[in-house]
Order: sequence, then C-alpha cells, then structure tokens
Amino acid sequence: MSDPYARLSLNTMTTKSWTLREAVEATAAAGLPAIGLWRDRVAEAGVDDAAKIVRDHGLRVSSLCRGGFLTGLHDGDTALADNRRAIDEAATLGAPELIMVAGGVPDRDLPGARARLADRIAELVPYAAQRDVRLALEPLHPMFCADRAVISTLGQALELAAPHPAESVGVVVDTFHIWWDPELAQRVADAGAAGRISSYQICDWLVPMAADPLVSRGMMGDGVIDFGAITAMVAAAGYAGDVEVEIFNEAVWATEGHTVLETMKSRYRDMVLPAL
Amino acid sequence: MSDPYARLSLNTMTTKSWTLREAVEATAAAGLPAIGLWRDRVAEAGVDDAAKIVRDHGLRVSSLCRGGFLTGLHDGDTALADNRRAIDEAATLGAPELIMVAGGVPDRDLPGARARLADRIAELVPYAAQRDVRLALEPLHPMFCADRAVISTLGQALELAAPHPAESVGVVVDTFHIWWDPELAQRVADAGAAGRISSYQICDWLVPMAADPLVSRGMMGDGVIDFGAITAMVAAAGYAGDVEVEIFNEAVWATEGHTVLETMKSRYRDMVLPAL
Repeated sequence: MSDPYARLSLNTMTTKSWTLREAVEATAAAGLPAIGLWRDRVAEAGVDDAAKIVRDHGLRVSSLCRGGFLTGLHDGDTALADNRRAIDEAATLGAPELIMVAGGVPDRDLPGARARLADRIAELVPYAAQRDVRLALEPLHPMFCADRAVISTLGQALELAAPHPAESVGVVVDTFHIWWDPELAQRVADAGAAGRISSYQICDWLVPMAADPLVSRGMMGDGVIDFGAITAMVAAAGYAGDVEVEIFNEAVWATEGHTVLETMKSRYRDMVLPAL
Repeated sequence: MSDPYARLSLNTMTTKSWTLREAVEATAAAGLPAIGLWRDRVAEAGVDDAAKIVRDHGLRVSSLCRGGFLTGLHDGDTALADNRRAIDEAATLGAPELIMVAGGVPDRDLPGARARLADRIAELVPYAAQRDVRLALEPLHPMFCADRAVISTLGQALELAAPHPAESVGVVVDTFHIWWDPELAQRVADAGAAGRISSYQICDWLVPMAADPLVSRGMMGDGVIDFGAITAMVAAAGYAGDVEVEIFNEAVWATEGHTVLETMKSRYRDMVLPAL
C-alpha cells in the first residue's frame, strides 16, 4: 500500500510556537516528506543552518513564505531588495516556490497598486529564474485586498502570471482564500492547463469568523469548505505536488504541536487524500 | 443650479436608532428625495402606515431591504412565503426594488446552495413581476459567502439574473461588497448594458476591519474606496436611479442622526456627485 502521507506538508505557521528545528524534527518523525517554511523561522536558525537541518532530516521544502508586498508608493526599491533576498533564501533552502503576497492599497488607487505590482513582478522574474525559484502568486481572500493583497482571485493571478514563463511564475491555490469563487472550477483547470499551480495549501473557513480575520483559518473539517470537491479540481488539473497545511488559529496555536500534527494527518487522510 | 441631492437616499440602517417616522421626517427635512427602508422598521410602523408616512413626506422609496435567504436545505417553503410577503410589502410601499440577500451555505455544498437559490428565485419572479417589484440580487462580499450570501460577485449575480426579464430581476452595486473585484469595470458595464442595475449603494471599506465584519462599513471618505472611480463606472453604465447610503457601523450608530445626515450629504457632494 502506498504511503498516505507521501504528499502532505506541514507549514511552520500551523505549529507556530516551534522553532524551525523542532518543526523539522516533528515533521520527519510524523512520517511526512515535506515542510513549508516561513522566513521568520528560517532567519532565527540562519538560512544555511536551516537548509542543513531540513536536508539532514530528509525533507523537501514545499514552499517558502513569503515574498511580495510590492504595491507601496515609495518603498519599491526596498521591497524589491527584500524580495531578492527571499529568492536567494529559497534557492539556498531548495524551495522551488516562493509564495508571493501582493501587498495592499496604500492610497485609494487600486488599479495603481495593481500596476505597480505587475511592474515589480516583471523586475523580479529574471532574478528568480536564474536561481530556479518560481514566484508563486497567491490570491488572498478579498477581505485582505485593502491591507494585504490586491490579488483576490485565481483568474486575476493567472492574468498577472501570463506574460511570464510558467516555470518562473505560478499561482497558489489556497482553499481558505478561494473556496467562495464562483469561477473556481474553471480557474483551477486553467491554472493546471497552463502548468502554473505552484502550491496547494489547505485549511478550513470557520463560521463565525474570528474577530481578527487573519487567524480565522481552521483545521480541515472544522468549517464549511468541501475539501473533496476542491481537491478533486486540483487533482484533475494535473497537480502532483505537495499539499501544505497552513493554519493561522489561536486555538490551534495553543494546542501541543504533536497533537496538531496527528489531527492534521487524520483529517487529511479522511477528507483530502480520497480526492487526490 | 440643479439640486445636488436630487438622487441621494438615506438607508434606514444608517440611522439605526430612528423609527421609520423619525427617519422619514429627517430625510425630508434634510432635503433628500428618497429613502431606503428595512423591513424591521416598516413592520414596527405597520406596512400601510409606513407607506402613508413616506407618501405624506413626498419621498421615493429607493429600495426595500430585504428578501432572500433562499439557500436553506429544509426551510424552502417558509423562505418563499416570507419572500412573497416582502414583495407584497415592497408593492404597498411603492418600492420598485426588493434587495435580495441570497443566503449562505447550510452544509458544505456550495454549488448545491447556489442551485437552490436559482430555483427559488425562478419561483418568485412571476409573483414579483405581477406586483411591479424587481428582485435586486445583491452580491455580498465573499467574506459573507458561508453564512449570508452565496452570490459574491456582480458577474455571478448577472448570470443568475440572465434567465429572467431585466424588468423582473436586477443586481445591486454596493461599493463595500464589490470594490475589490478585478472585473468590476466590465461587470458594471455589463449590468448597465443589460438594464439590470437595480440599486447603487455606497459606504466605505475601513482599515482595519471591525471585529464583526458586518459592522465594518464606514462613511464615505473614511476608508480606501475610490468613490469617484466606481461612481463613474455606474454613471457610464447608464444608471440614473438613487444613490443610497447604507452604513452598518457602531460609531455611526452612536452619533446623533441629524449629524450623520449632514456628514453623509457633504461627503456625497464632495466624493460621489462629481462623478455621477
């Protein structure tokens, strides 16, 4: 029988209190093959040491979170420099995908913010391509459009990616951000047909939402998302990469990490794997 | 010089503490020609009395809020009966548009909820048409998809409306719900070309959001929405109806109503009217 967890990845944000080493050790001990890293945990360990820790435990890095925040009016050069550093880190870590969170609307000019984003992505593409890192454009839920990401749909992410090679710019399918989209099935298929699905991230949409929407992401099965249906779309689109569990949630963060990992494995096996 | 407020309407939710009579009197005294009514305030006054109060003050009813909540698994007949009552009330009040909030996802089956919604709208259309009331489908912000409205975009609302005559089913353009949509300009144009813009409702998107997203709607100018740009789209689409200010916001509700009305008038004159 094949390994049910052969594509399951723990995003370090899900077990937020753990250091990078703790997260890597627990992920390997739990029999998972991959881990998604956030830059803050990588920075604490140091990039080279982080890469060695991951390598020594035989894990893949499914993605590095995150670059982006490219919509500012006056800090463009600073943002580009930071994104180049993020690309370097991804290359050192062997992370094939750098998750890009676009950035919000600094004034009231949403089209202007989107135009700056497109220009700055174009500036980063050659740098990323030289290092074999793909920029993974992540549509965030529209409730984050003002302060965090002016990319709100998969269709829009694909349009932004279109001018660039599929090996250099992809899109992220994150259930929390896109489950509501009436065009979801078509856009996931489009993303697959274009060879641009960089990452499949999962977590649930809780009802009611948490007071801070950022931490309203729930464990699969605790909310309203149909993981079977969305996973089937992603599978039909030809995605063969890792499935990363990324949960921002105070209650999950207050739970002992190994317990979180076990819950995540069983929910994945029951709700996601059958459709994969 | 023409009257700057000739198309401005107060939605009773904006001055929540007022009775219907208080809202009508203040609206008329402020020189506005129209009012948008919620059914709770109408019920308190009684429908016939409410209609007489509005008529006696020479106001138009720009819309009645709200019908809908048509996605339930087991309460379909009850919901349809309530919607027929809402249509009757709109007819009695002389409200040409009944705002329809779709309803959420009662289980995990979003396509199922949308299918029930489409079926039940089809059932209501003849009843509404006989009474000269248009069903105004309102896309709500995607953050309300789970618990309140499975219509999340203007494009989706237009698709739902398409099988029915434009005189019977329209769509609502509410800045709070749709400002983030990357397809906004095209969809507003589509809605206008189809003769389906039922209502233009305005309020701002605040940053940060309120802990309860329902009451995170702000006075125009207090958030990130470009009212000039969106109003210009609506005007270019040929919309010639009222502009209704509908704000759910604890601070606005705590402010004396006449002060709210004056602020609303001056913000409208400065930020909306020039593009209308």
